[in-house]
Amino acid sequence: MNSIESIKILAGKPVGWLKDGDSEESIILSSRIRLARNISDLRFPLNSSDVEREYVREVICSAVDNSGVIKGRLNFKISELSNVDRRFLLERHLVSKDFCAGNVGSELILESDESFGIMINEEDHVRVQVLSAGLSLGELWKKINEKDTSLSEEVSFVFDSELGYLTSCPTNVGTGMRASVMLNLPGLSMLGHMAGVIQGAGNLGMTVRGLYGEGSEAIGYMYQVSNQSTLGESEEDIIERLEKLIQQIALFEKNARQILFQTRKDFVLDFAGRAYGVLRYSHLISEKEALNLLSALRMGVDMKMFSSLNIGKVNELFISVQDSHLQKICGRDLTSTEIDGCRAELLRSFLRKE
Amino acid sequence: MNSIESIKILAGKPVGWLKDGDSEESIILSSRIRLARNISDLRFPLNSSDVEREYVREVICSAVDNSGVIKGRLNFKISELSNVDRRFLLERHLVSKDFCAGNVGSELILESDESFGIMINEEDHVRVQVLSAGLSLGELWKKINEKDTSLSEEVSFVFDSELGYLTSCPTNVGTGMRASVMLNLPGLSMLGHMAGVIQGAGNLGMTVRGLYGEGSEAIGYMYQVSNQSTLGESEEDIIERLEKLIQQIALFEKNARQILFQTRKDFVLDFAGRAYGVLRYSHLISEKEALNLLSALRMGVDMKMFSSLNIGKVNELFISVQDSHLQKICGRDLTSTEIDGCRAELLRSFLRKE
Repeated sequence: MNSIESIKILAGKPVGWLKDGDSEESIILSSRIRLARNISDLRFPLNSSDVEREYVREVICSAVDNSGVIKGRLNFKISELSNVDRRFLLERHLVSKDFCAGNVGSELILESDESFGIMINEEDHVRVQVLSAGLSLGELWKKINEKDTSLSEEVSFVFDSELGYLTSCPTNVGTGMRASVMLNLPGLSMLGHMAGVIQGAGNLGMTVRGLYGEGSEAIGYMYQVSNQSTLGESEEDIIERLEKLIQQIALFEKNARQILFQTRKDFVLDFAGRAYGVLRYSHLISEKEALNLLSALRMGVDMKMFSSLNIGKVNELFISVQDSHLQKICGRDLTSTEIDGCRAELLRSFLRKE
Repeated sequence: MNSIESIKILAGKPVGWLKDGDSEESIILSSRIRLARNISDLRFPLNSSDVEREYVREVICSAVDNSGVIKGRLNFKISELSNVDRRFLLERHLVSKDFCAGNVGSELILESDESFGIMINEEDHVRVQVLSAGLSLGELWKKINEKDTSLSEEVSFVFDSELGYLTSCPTNVGTGMRASVMLNLPGLSMLGHMAGVIQGAGNLGMTVRGLYGEGSEAIGYMYQVSNQSTLGESEEDIIERLEKLIQQIALFEKNARQILFQTRKDFVLDFAGRAYGVLRYSHLISEKEALNLLSALRMGVDMKMFSSLNIGKVNELFISVQDSHLQKICGRDLTSTEIDGCRAELLRSFLRKE
């Protein structure tokens, strides 16, 4: 199947990795683990020729075929994808920004339910990624570890007995693992407690970032919390510490919402109520405003303001109201005003139905 | 009946002068005519002693009694009213800002349906005022002229055979008449055509002001258009010219809305839709925001976006969502946050019912 057909299949269905999770969760949106791996005796992608990169692609594709790690396989060669298509994969959190920039030999191989993918020729030869809704780092680790083991039987990854896995960027050397959890933190943000959370996470070797990872803005009070260090500790230890931190932050957020609701109830009702009103009746809405208002809406659902609204469906909207998703839904290139109109229409029709 | 009881009666019912008008009108909100009169051989109020002002009050009250011009009479002595009560009368357009500042002997005598009132000891000894919904300057002139004639049979007003009626401020000398019409002009405002309208009105001896007359801001795209000159022309001529101008502006506004709807339909739908959404679901809303959004809502009703909404009731809200009205409805002094909450509640409950 070619890249264009693969995009069509994804565009026609809801985000696969969101479906299995706890749809009642209004704080923890999703969990993700990725491993960085490089093939022995080959130069790293950023430093290699087109021929080398194409060779890497072939080696990994064969390894994937032979190991059988991916079922219902979809392929996305970055060179075959338009900017909209690349951005579409990014919006679904299936690829990284660097990967979207694209290069010869860069390819995403994806399990059709979107819960498992392999990026070839990103910053490293291989980036293996697993995703799920809610908090499930333990299960994800078990799954990705098995996949990694299977792949390692087919292809030899660079491993140093002292340092561990070697990677393109020193921040990944060791486990090569980045585990991250996406959180919705309006309560802590509104109370001005995010600086404390970020510092506390830092003290535990964890880092807090915006919606699309490093350097991105925290749109809609969405934050990614992930491990900073990859050296000197087992994957299990890192994951256990991260999971405990996430549970702690979620508890802080619950408390913050309660405090807000007790001390500034009208403000909170107003915040979520206006969000609902605008999402329900606007005819032009930007991506940033929509994401911010959806976040306020989630908080309202959490506070039982909108009894008929399903958090799982609101979470879906966080993905599907983004620019490239709307262009794929409409099946053509749109002007930015058309996108804003299309987004408002989608939101109105969703809230009318609910 | 004392002033406090009179306020209670008004606070318990919808704005009287709005009821009779064309409730389908979405551009012309209301018409008003007032006459400035002063009693012969007495100093003007701004220049008179407390004793003189009290004497003026007694003379006018007797004249009102004897002439029978006011039925179902309500009395409001400014010195007996709190700031909230004074502001309440201003919000209902029954008194002027100057009158609210208050002085010994300042009193409003009002017909209980609010369509006719007499301010005593404002800038002039007497300010007679008639009000109605929609555009009805001709009828209003007939009505106020009769009232003025009846009063003149009981009290002698200063009249100069060359200049006409003499008044405290030279801008009123002559007819002593100010006729004004309240217009809602979002279309012309959005297209940036208000400067042209203001200039055109000026060329015809008319002036365009904000919601509360001279020097006030055009909140919610509401404008007052009134005659500037009071000299050298009969009242009938001035009124005829003003009425023609208003009809012209209303036509311009209709065209402007059509142009907006044809060329920027999404923008207009968005503008009115968001207004509806916020008014329907907010829990805290300022007076200024509410008036602006109600204006957008009127435009939406005009464009058949909200089929079940009645313009007459929306016009009522323009008055009743104001700060002092809300305090009177709640029957106690409120903090500014409480007022914002009370306003949002009133608007939510109104739109839920409609």
